[in-house]
Amino acid sequence: MAATIPSEEQVVEWMTSLSNWGRWGDDDQHGTLNLITPQKRKQAAALVQDGIPVSCARPITSEITPDVTYQMQRFMVDSGEGRDTDPPERRRVRRGAAEFIGMVFHGQTITHIDALSHYSWQGTMYNGVPASLVTSREGAQSHSIELAADGIISRGVLLDIPRLRGVDWLDPGDPVMPDDLDAAEQRFGVRVEPGDILLIRTGNYRKILERGPVSGAESMTACQVACTPWFKDRDIAMMSTDTSNDMRPSHYANIATPLHTVSLVALGLWLIDNANLEQLAEACRQRQRYAFMLNMGPLRLRHVTGSPVNPIALF
Amino acid sequence: MAATIPSEEQVVEWMTSLSNWGRWGDDDQHGTLNLITPQKRKQAAALVQDGIPVSCARPITSEITPDVTYQMQRFMVDSGEGRDTDPPERRRVRRGAAEFIGMVFHGQTITHIDALSHYSWQGTMYNGVPASLVTSREGAQSHSIELAADGIISRGVLLDIPRLRGVDWLDPGDPVMPDDLDAAEQRFGVRVEPGDILLIRTGNYRKILERGPVSGAESMTACQVACTPWFKDRDIAMMSTDTSNDMRPSHYANIATPLHTVSLVALGLWLIDNANLEQLAEACRQRQRYAFMLNMGPLRLRHVTGSPVNPIALF
Amino acid sequence: MAATIPSEEQVVEWMTSLSNWGRWGDDDQHGTLNLITPQKRKQAAALVQDGIPVSCARPITSEITPDVTYQMQRFMVDSGEGRDTDPPERRRVRRGAAEFIGMVFHGQTITHIDALSHYSWQGTMYNGVPASLVTSREGAQSHSIELAADGIISRGVLLDIPRLRGVDWLDPGDPVMPDDLDAAEQRFGVRVEPGDILLIRTGNYRKILERGPVSGAESMTACQVACTPWFKDRDIAMMSTDTSNDMRPSHYANIATPLHTVSLVALGLWLIDNANLEQLAEACRQRQRYAFMLNMGPLRLRHVTGSPVNPIALF
Amino acid sequence: MAATIPSEEQVVEWMTSLSNWGRWGDDDQHGTLNLITPQKRKQAAALVQDGIPVSCARPITSEITPDVTYQMQRFMVDSGEGRDTDPPERRRVRRGAAEFIGMVFHGQTITHIDALSHYSWQGTMYNGVPASLVTSREGAQSHSIELAADGIISRGVLLDIPRLRGVDWLDPGDPVMPDDLDAAEQRFGVRVEPGDILLIRTGNYRKILERGPVSGAESMTACQVACTPWFKDRDIAMMSTDTSNDMRPSHYANIATPLHTVSLVALGLWLIDNANLEQLAEACRQRQRYAFMLNMGPLRLRHVTGSPVNPIALF
Repeated sequence: MAATIPSEEQVVEWMTSLSNWGRWGDDDQHGTLNLITPQKRKQAAALVQDGIPVSCARPITSEITPDVTYQMQRFMVDSGEGRDTDPPERRRVRRGAAEFIGMVFHGQTITHIDALSHYSWQGTMYNGVPASLVTSREGAQSHSIELAADGIISRGVLLDIPRLRGVDWLDPGDPVMPDDLDAAEQRFGVRVEPGDILLIRTGNYRKILERGPVSGAESMTACQVACTPWFKDRDIAMMSTDTSNDMRPSHYANIATPLHTVSLVALGLWLIDNANLEQLAEACRQRQRYAFMLNMGPLRLRHVTGSPVNPIALF
Repeated sequence: MAATIPSEEQVVEWMTSLSNWGRWGDDDQHGTLNLITPQKRKQAAALVQDGIPVSCARPITSEITPDVTYQMQRFMVDSGEGRDTDPPERRRVRRGAAEFIGMVFHGQTITHIDALSHYSWQGTMYNGVPASLVTSREGAQSHSIELAADGIISRGVLLDIPRLRGVDWLDPGDPVMPDDLDAAEQRFGVRVEPGDILLIRTGNYRKILERGPVSGAESMTACQVACTPWFKDRDIAMMSTDTSNDMRPSHYANIATPLHTVSLVALGLWLIDNANLEQLAEACRQRQRYAFMLNMGPLRLRHVTGSPVNPIALF
Repeated sequence: MAATIPSEEQVVEWMTSLSNWGRWGDDDQHGTLNLITPQKRKQAAALVQDGIPVSCARPITSEITPDVTYQMQRFMVDSGEGRDTDPPERRRVRRGAAEFIGMVFHGQTITHIDALSHYSWQGTMYNGVPASLVTSREGAQSHSIELAADGIISRGVLLDIPRLRGVDWLDPGDPVMPDDLDAAEQRFGVRVEPGDILLIRTGNYRKILERGPVSGAESMTACQVACTPWFKDRDIAMMSTDTSNDMRPSHYANIATPLHTVSLVALGLWLIDNANLEQLAEACRQRQRYAFMLNMGPLRLRHVTGSPVNPIALF
Repeated sequence: MAATIPSEEQVVEWMTSLSNWGRWGDDDQHGTLNLITPQKRKQAAALVQDGIPVSCARPITSEITPDVTYQMQRFMVDSGEGRDTDPPERRRVRRGAAEFIGMVFHGQTITHIDALSHYSWQGTMYNGVPASLVTSREGAQSHSIELAADGIISRGVLLDIPRLRGVDWLDPGDPVMPDDLDAAEQRFGVRVEPGDILLIRTGNYRKILERGPVSGAESMTACQVACTPWFKDRDIAMMSTDTSNDMRPSHYANIATPLHTVSLVALGLWLIDNANLEQLAEACRQRQRYAFMLNMGPLRLRHVTGSPVNPIALF
């Protein structure tokens, strides 16, 4: 396997050779979302046969587990406690139960979208925009998740690599490589096309469910950056795995997160990190069908680098 | 108009006479979401003709405006500043730009779903469950938004009341009444059916966009609680307006928020508060078509009374 | 030792027999802070001989350690990054580096004051006030930390129990008992008097520093509730240890936190949880002096059940 | 008055001529806190005659007022509601009422200390340390509030400028100038000495209490930067006013906050912003005594640019 891992020089070269900068205009901030056309959405809707929806998100909890860097917060603004004995005048002023929720959705626990403001390379984001436009005070003044305000709906395609290989999940040191993608297409009778949202299962979330979460210091599988030319070749609109989308440890001395870097900065390819592909894989297996309508409504957060999301596959 | 406003006694009576308690079993927590069947989702997908998506959500910003009770929070965990001059060793450890986001989504600014744990009546939630299960410490241990984990996808229907009446927006003292719903169906050539998600436009958000937000102490239009028998009669799965879904001030001395109370507690009817129906109304007007596929993926928040959401109508 | 542990009946009896309810008036909310007189503060200031201050607080960090229930938050609102290359117009609008800080100070990690709103017994707080005045929505509408707005300054007295016993720290199952307090007074040549702030060292924080934090599920030493009659007898104004101030596990089937309950509810005795008494113990040992001026300025938080604090002993 | 306002060139020149860089060593991060010696603390304690404490802090509330940029947060983790009817098994698991508190203490509402990491000039902090050490991710890795972990206790001196001038408060365009400081010393019979904490009253907080808060876009008085040579000359350890410590609007085209810049960066002079000097002024007036012991215990926040604080004057 190690023989096929691209060199750091190769990765750096891809920053140029795979670049979509300028492809959709000098001012473009949408990147590969440009590939989702009305026709793609109609194609997606036409795939609906059973009316059965499947979530591709993990639960969002405030538990502290080894994979948590920033604890999710849930604090009640008003609870249901004491409602049965509240005197009438108190009932008149109390409203519904409600809570504050807070989170750093980036990280390795929450299913979320990475907008193109999430990453930069040598101080520059996709299409040559300075990273300094993402400020502490004002947030993402360019390349914000707001660009996806009207939702992301397209054909979703699942490639189930552990099922292809006959294993429960990929081992940490054993990433998804381009050959896996070709073989999975062949095996599952589906072909990834322009504008598709490609979901690649590694089994990582199943491993977490069975073995428990591990810290970010431990090794983890993902798609190796070698897959990025394949993504470009197929012109996918979005890519997701059930990992945080870069191997740990990195294969490279100077690029800690090569898949994020090439995808978000060079290709302008939006990512979904930490998906839950377990129920989806089962739904595909049962139907022997690996393409479906996929619906996402990112929160319309102002000046933000992504969004927590619950992608819904509809069969 | 005042003549047709139901009495407080009538509203209290509806708590029993409109009740769906027990209808879907003694343990049911899904309420009217039970009305969204696979068949409904297929019907919804079959409505897609143009492949054009429209967001029904408002932007979520950290600005303090008069309608804000709890300020939305956005704090960068890491920014893009200084990336251009970071020395190599610093580049190796810095990851993507990322932020903390926090919000109390209930209120009158953020487009959000009310799950059935949001409300109680005399200490009891939908289907007879004690409100005390919604605790400060543990959150919504019943009737949580998690029940909608697999998304809410159905046929959406827009009834555009200001357009029906030929006004820009309804005045604060002028609520939507059942007759309006009947007249709008007639006018726009659509009929609300079981399992539909009913979106009722009052023009309130257009007013906010043009005149600016107002404080929660000022009067506001909404659907009058008189509409709830109509909702029950048509068996809608969900109801939304471009208001916070109860008139201010209340018509009733002892029931501050009657529409929430009858809908969430008696009917088990899920609500969407503070929708943005402006682009949707225009899309419907252009097409002379008021039914469409509507997609929502509520965040899979554990033990929470609702979720911020970006509902996407797909034409 | 077990022979001297009071029974649950005894603890319940103390809720009445040790009560200070009504002692300082029917409307009193200050409890034992009433014992700090101007004369006490003058006595405290008169103890200053060296001008050397010592902090009795632990650092407040955002790290997730096993003893953390709610992670402390620190998010920069603006950083110092990129300041060197900001163009002049950007320099004119950027202000200082600043951050959001957030915390649940109650718990077992942060040095904090418990105001009397922190605890209730059978629905009632100190001096007979209903616990229901501490609401989710409005906070502590009685017995708030605001009562200590003008600071808490008095004579502080340290009783160093591990030094008395010749051990590094007390074992989890080995609590501080009243006899220890008497013996420590004798040994260290100090007598606890009315209005004093009593600091009792168990070595628990030293153990944490040397062995690392442990989860709240593990056992922990503290003052046994048997010490509360001693506190009442000496009429201390405030009590602190280097623990979270109740043994784990509790000796009682139905009272999880007896020291908090008897102290805060019956005596009206304010507590400091999770102090750092390591530098203080060394300062006392060096000087062979166990009484000193102790200064606290609780934050003037509106409707809040306590405050993080950095108590400063001045020798 | 305008004639005496120093030029921008003069202010820039002070960045060098008033500099304390190197004065306490090349690695010093304490700045003017070095001037508080044990002798100063003994002098401070010796001033205590009455044993009467006075808070110099404003209440911290979650209200949204025109001067709020970031709303303070208070969310209950557990309330007192329902405690009276909790069944025994629930009583055994519920603990005390507790809350999350969160705030951006910098700004114009909360009484707080500015540590030297709060400000930089052309990318550099006090004593030549790069501002880039204050990072979004890690916080203030130098010049943190932790340097004041052992508290700040010294002689406090109040100069009451509106009382000197016979007005209720200074007008927004009418700053405190060095002549005011000399005149106030003369009038109130006190002389500011090395290591003192100088509190300068402008009446700004009284104006807020009487007229209500105003937005940060409106003009506000403060000490003019012309006072900084006076601060250097007297070698004060800390300076505070009842303002946010820089005039609005700035007198300078290119320096928005000159007092912060010269004080924090050149002098290494720690500041207290937004003090409440109303009760203190009254206490001084009654006693005809303008020097007192002043006690502060900044929170021991790791890697943070300051701290909310409740400074306690003890007479």
